[in-house]
Amino acid sequence: MLLNADLGESYGKWEMGNDEAIMPYIDQASIACGYHAGDPIVMQRCIQLTKMHDVSIGAHVAYPDIQGFGRRSMRIPEAELVPIIMSQIATLDGLARCAGTKVDYVKPHGALYNDMMQSSDILQTVFKSIANFHVPLTLMVQSLVDNSIVEKMSTQFNVRVIYEGFSDRGYNNDGLLQPRGKQGAVLNLQASVSRIKHLQKFGNILSVDGKSLRLKIDSMCVHSDTQDAVNICQRIRELIDNA
Amino acid sequence: MLLNADLGESYGKWEMGNDEAIMPYIDQASIACGYHAGDPIVMQRCIQLTKMHDVSIGAHVAYPDIQGFGRRSMRIPEAELVPIIMSQIATLDGLARCAGTKVDYVKPHGALYNDMMQSSDILQTVFKSIANFHVPLTLMVQSLVDNSIVEKMSTQFNVRVIYEGFSDRGYNNDGLLQPRGKQGAVLNLQASVSRIKHLQKFGNILSVDGKSLRLKIDSMCVHSDTQDAVNICQRIRELIDNA
Amino acid sequence: MLLNADLGESYGKWEMGNDEAIMPYIDQASIACGYHAGDPIVMQRCIQLTKMHDVSIGAHVAYPDIQGFGRRSMRIPEAELVPIIMSQIATLDGLARCAGTKVDYVKPHGALYNDMMQSSDILQTVFKSIANFHVPLTLMVQSLVDNSIVEKMSTQFNVRVIYEGFSDRGYNNDGLLQPRGKQGAVLNLQASVSRIKHLQKFGNILSVDGKSLRLKIDSMCVHSDTQDAVNICQRIRELIDNA
Amino acid sequence: MLLNADLGESYGKWEMGNDEAIMPYIDQASIACGYHAGDPIVMQRCIQLTKMHDVSIGAHVAYPDIQGFGRRSMRIPEAELVPIIMSQIATLDGLARCAGTKVDYVKPHGALYNDMMQSSDILQTVFKSIANFHVPLTLMVQSLVDNSIVEKMSTQFNVRVIYEGFSDRGYNNDGLLQPRGKQGAVLNLQASVSRIKHLQKFGNILSVDGKSLRLKIDSMCVHSDTQDAVNICQRIRELIDNA
Repeated sequence: MLLNADLGESYGKWEMGNDEAIMPYIDQASIACGYHAGDPIVMQRCIQLTKMHDVSIGAHVAYPDIQGFGRRSMRIPEAELVPIIMSQIATLDGLARCAGTKVDYVKPHGALYNDMMQSSDILQTVFKSIANFHVPLTLMVQSLVDNSIVEKMSTQFNVRVIYEGFSDRGYNNDGLLQPRGKQGAVLNLQASVSRIKHLQKFGNILSVDGKSLRLKIDSMCVHSDTQDAVNICQRIRELIDNA
Repeated sequence: MLLNADLGESYGKWEMGNDEAIMPYIDQASIACGYHAGDPIVMQRCIQLTKMHDVSIGAHVAYPDIQGFGRRSMRIPEAELVPIIMSQIATLDGLARCAGTKVDYVKPHGALYNDMMQSSDILQTVFKSIANFHVPLTLMVQSLVDNSIVEKMSTQFNVRVIYEGFSDRGYNNDGLLQPRGKQGAVLNLQASVSRIKHLQKFGNILSVDGKSLRLKIDSMCVHSDTQDAVNICQRIRELIDNA
Repeated sequence: MLLNADLGESYGKWEMGNDEAIMPYIDQASIACGYHAGDPIVMQRCIQLTKMHDVSIGAHVAYPDIQGFGRRSMRIPEAELVPIIMSQIATLDGLARCAGTKVDYVKPHGALYNDMMQSSDILQTVFKSIANFHVPLTLMVQSLVDNSIVEKMSTQFNVRVIYEGFSDRGYNNDGLLQPRGKQGAVLNLQASVSRIKHLQKFGNILSVDGKSLRLKIDSMCVHSDTQDAVNICQRIRELIDNA
Repeated sequence: MLLNADLGESYGKWEMGNDEAIMPYIDQASIACGYHAGDPIVMQRCIQLTKMHDVSIGAHVAYPDIQGFGRRSMRIPEAELVPIIMSQIATLDGLARCAGTKVDYVKPHGALYNDMMQSSDILQTVFKSIANFHVPLTLMVQSLVDNSIVEKMSTQFNVRVIYEGFSDRGYNNDGLLQPRGKQGAVLNLQASVSRIKHLQKFGNILSVDGKSLRLKIDSMCVHSDTQDAVNICQRIRELIDNA
């Protein structure tokens, strides 16, 4: 199991997250591409950090909405959304190649991630964007109890998938996340660590109702923007390395 | 001598220029990269047109100023301007590669073009941006009576240069353009055609003062956004093909 | 019955519509506020035209999406959407006051207009934004066969309403518009003129199915961005003036 | 002597500064208007804070450059810059009026502030923008050893002026600021407090060379974005109140 985090979320003079402190502990960095956060300077700096720590790069693609941080759903026709996604991958991948590395995978951000997990039309638009890219890339999606739609499209578009789990978010019984604001939506350091230990021991994750969910998890997401983020990262890294 | 035009300058629902009508007559299309004009949809469409007509692609890079169409000079430190330029090339080149083609050259746009021709610091920033790119690209610059600074940097950064001339703009005695608004700044169809004929016959261009300028010209710029643009393109294409 | 048009939809160097030609024929100009089109220069110019032709000013407020021209629905929480709308009114109204005039009404644009007509939550957000403004303004909404929800909110928020009809769009039986792309969605000059004549004679509008719709119409919308727009404007103006 | 600070510099999900902690200690808040920082939500929140603490509102107007935080000089023609400035004032003032308050003064931000102090053309553009506004506003400018150009324009445009001093920046002998990065450019808490005490006792400020500068200062700027900002504010407030 790998560890991933969403990074490169500063913008201009505004700092966000803790890229330098998080990078040593993760395997995969999903870097903002300028549509919900990030700009060419921020992207370049974050790419350098991935090189220093030998971290795989993901394009964290989003709806075009900097002021809203990509968290507001937008109804964008496929004919527009495909080039919008491709363009973001192109920018980050081009900058990465200038630094002697490259984008390995794509992870939709915020509202686009949620929409993709709930609408097969949008999921298909995402798959299509990646399939159109000039080099093969994998898609990071949320692992659900039932991943059959994703599996089918993965085959159809010939795009491999990375199944993602969440270390610090509450799960519903279907494997979707408990919405923020609701009871148990966010886990603290203690609970995150317990989840990873439980997963390593029993091979499942407990939902907020206590149901055990068998989720295929290739990569575990750790958040980078909270107070405790660095500590959580470090602890989970140790647990994984000692497994 | 080749023919180039600035294309892909539509934006969202706003149309500009006449990409489809101009493309058949030119050899090189300098395509806006989303910083002064263009968006992913416009770029993708324009790239398709270059493929259809076997036209070489240039990244028309600009200051970040859509509302001002990249025509307002911005004092941007090199540490910011280099990634800003590289990022634009990366976006267009990535989209081009997705279509099975690629960016061949870079042409700064508007205020960035003017600034580069008047400040060796900014010229150097442009050269550095191109030298940093992950594949070799050439730089399109304005040919002056004295190109020695450009020549020196071309050698220093190992970046080849395309010298550009203008078919429909008045020239000063040093080879810079007569500023818009001044007498003789813009040539009509008749005068443009005469210039090309004169250049083909005598190997020089006449300044607004009547001085004959020997300018090394690899590629002649035709504008795409005027009423007569398509006619001028077509006539100059014929003159070049018949030469 | 008044005549209104959506104007001020140019942006930077991109021209759209035909503000100067349309303005003499209309009573109300809904001017873009910079969120889907328009910028301070365009707004100022358009405000001057309203003064010259004694036309009432509406703030044509939109989702924040210039590249998408405000035509893509965005799910924005009320706490963000209210200040977003108020801010647009504030900008246009302030510029209008600098020119000795003011904003009289608010008309949501594009996706926001459609969303408001289909979701009472969003309609309420719009009403709230207007009710919060520092001077009383009216809201322009689409007149439906059943306007009871609008009526109720108008009373609740103490915001008067202007009911809008469309001169050149096909109607469904409930008074909503036939979606673009479907049969009969857009009317030509001939059909537009017939509709107005029919309305003046019989007091109703015929749906695409031929059903007669009794719609309360205070102001008729004429489009400004089509080829025939000026002619249609002129003809309908004559019909209204001769009534 | 009053105390002012630049506030409302958050943007979307990015926080900057410490508006709530600073507001109780100042007399005047220069609030970003969305062109270098700030958005409708941030503006509205900041306006509420000014009301709570009875603080006068200034429009902190800037070049249109969010990613660059308004710190990059832009060469914008007067015909564009005037509406750009007026539009920013209009937005903030309109939102303020919705909250039962209003904009009292205008302070240019960052590169626009510097450009105005060094170019009488740009200073005149700023005066013109304010003179065009629909209610009388004052202009906050940097007090120099020689304020004669400002005085003349103040009379010419009938716009009153607030002379600003800096509590924590090094001064050159002409009253301009020591550029950041140079020796003595930024003062710590200790040195800031000493400056205010010295000013209160002797009526002058010492330049980095030790020259005593007699500067007319109506309002002293305290920064809000540094670690010590709140402490400095509090200390200077006490010194002023005890004077």
